[in-house]
Amino acid sequence: MTAQQMRTPTPEGVLRAAAKIADLLVKTPLIEAEVNGTAVWFKAECLQPVGAFKIRGAWHRLSDLSAEERARGVVGVSSGNHAQGVAWAARRLGIPATIVMPVDAPQVKIDATRGMGAEVVLYDRPGGEDRDEVAQRLIDQSGAVLVHAFADPWVIEGQGSAGVEIAGQMAERGLDGPTRIVCPCGGGGLTAGLALACPDAEIVPVEPEGWDDVRLSLEAGEIVGVPDPSHPTACDALQTPATRPINFAVLKGRVPRGLVVTPAEVRAAQRWAFANLHLVVEPGGAAALAAVLAGKTPIDGRTVMILSGGNTDPQAFATVLSRAD
Amino acid sequence: MTAQQMRTPTPEGVLRAAAKIADLLVKTPLIEAEVNGTAVWFKAECLQPVGAFKIRGAWHRLSDLSAEERARGVVGVSSGNHAQGVAWAARRLGIPATIVMPVDAPQVKIDATRGMGAEVVLYDRPGGEDRDEVAQRLIDQSGAVLVHAFADPWVIEGQGSAGVEIAGQMAERGLDGPTRIVCPCGGGGLTAGLALACPDAEIVPVEPEGWDDVRLSLEAGEIVGVPDPSHPTACDALQTPATRPINFAVLKGRVPRGLVVTPAEVRAAQRWAFANLHLVVEPGGAAALAAVLAGKTPIDGRTVMILSGGNTDPQAFATVLSRAD
Repeated sequence: MTAQQMRTPTPEGVLRAAAKIADLLVKTPLIEAEVNGTAVWFKAECLQPVGAFKIRGAWHRLSDLSAEERARGVVGVSSGNHAQGVAWAARRLGIPATIVMPVDAPQVKIDATRGMGAEVVLYDRPGGEDRDEVAQRLIDQSGAVLVHAFADPWVIEGQGSAGVEIAGQMAERGLDGPTRIVCPCGGGGLTAGLALACPDAEIVPVEPEGWDDVRLSLEAGEIVGVPDPSHPTACDALQTPATRPINFAVLKGRVPRGLVVTPAEVRAAQRWAFANLHLVVEPGGAAALAAVLAGKTPIDGRTVMILSGGNTDPQAFATVLSRAD
Repeated sequence: MTAQQMRTPTPEGVLRAAAKIADLLVKTPLIEAEVNGTAVWFKAECLQPVGAFKIRGAWHRLSDLSAEERARGVVGVSSGNHAQGVAWAARRLGIPATIVMPVDAPQVKIDATRGMGAEVVLYDRPGGEDRDEVAQRLIDQSGAVLVHAFADPWVIEGQGSAGVEIAGQMAERGLDGPTRIVCPCGGGGLTAGLALACPDAEIVPVEPEGWDDVRLSLEAGEIVGVPDPSHPTACDALQTPATRPINFAVLKGRVPRGLVVTPAEVRAAQRWAFANLHLVVEPGGAAALAAVLAGKTPIDGRTVMILSGGNTDPQAFATVLSRAD
């Protein structure tokens, strides 16, 4: 990793990312609805062109590359949504992109990444292969630039642009900014970005059962990995074994605690979003809503939930809709 | 029906409705995507608070009632989406509402209408009971004001506000207005409203197989009902036996032709919207997209499709996702 990549993400960087993204993408809607009679807001990032917020960080990163770096190409490492974000940005900028994806990623995500012209290299996640090692080999061979899914200052700043939009959309409606933002959390890229973007809001990261490395790390005051990186979860987008120093440095002291949701709570949230919002939300994308519906966080004041992605196989979604749990 | 209700809907009325609705509701997003490499736009009315565009006409109608009319209450007749629109507007304005709904309407629509505080009176649609007669009996008893689902000047003007928003959202992006708007069509309320709202756009109504009364009427130059009003269709929202003079007067001469889509084309469109837009669209709401995907209309220039509603039972949607047709 180059020294440049290890610079500290800043609130100013978040604002610069937000300005670049405002020039590029139509704002995703901020939808008001009610949970148990209380008004809440949803930032519908599943409506982004790649179906997830990951387009933000990827665009901020790739559009800041020099001509020389662009010529060398980029390597992304992702379970699927960051893959599509990098592939989308790379195609738009004419940069060759290779994405390292787990062999057990949802097929829709693998297909969509290839469909955007990126080369996909699969690695054996269930067998414990280290994706960062696979990426490093590719980089050693080609000299390409690594675009990490969360441990990258540009990526953190880019994801934070969602927070800038939320505050702006609330102001347009005559509302003060968010009291709290509840967000799905994998490695902590989005969480750190929102913490930088919205200094006055409580930021509540939500992780799936078995993949609560950020929660454990916040509790311990230091980075702690998950005890069992083979624990099964439907939340493929949030399946990160451990956060990284660049993320934890932002979160520590700023984010008091994380929450955990069960598989049944996630499915209930997907069904709630289907019935009440008419949105398709993937399991990981529904984690924040799952925590709210389960009563795991207060929703007084102005609570915003991020619906972070909507890329899910039709058969998997049909199964969730058909279940009664 | 009172003389007041039979006034002619006007472009000025559409603009007045649009202004009222802009004060009330956040604009639904206009989403850009590609069909076979051509850019197209979707007006995502399934993201309205009641999950359908019907909130527009209902609000324009009910908010224009006098204090004396409000006290008498309103009666709506609807397969489900207009029901929810009327119930939503009535609750907000403190007006008692009774809705006549078919006994075979999707359960989610019946439950949602009741959930918004309206009284629901079921009628036997499969058995051929005339819903307008049921409504008239209620009106004779209570003196309530009829809010027809499509044959009402306020309702037509209100639905047309979607066209005003589309033109405005395209202008914000530096685009000229729509070349054509393809829209799901039941009785012709939305179609007539869009025709008034967007005089320079081609308006293309799309109906489901067996329920193509507007297409037949445009072809014949006079109002023609469907040959078999017991024909089964998944598009419950578009199940109207015949358009009415107030609608046909706007459409005749202005809308050259209508299109028809098959059940399989509708299902394919629902799956396309799931995978590419991450939106839940009900069968009737997907009719315009179905026609476009089936190549039944050109999409050169700037083609906008209305995704008119998203209220569908989870089990029905799961079945659509699971089918391979």
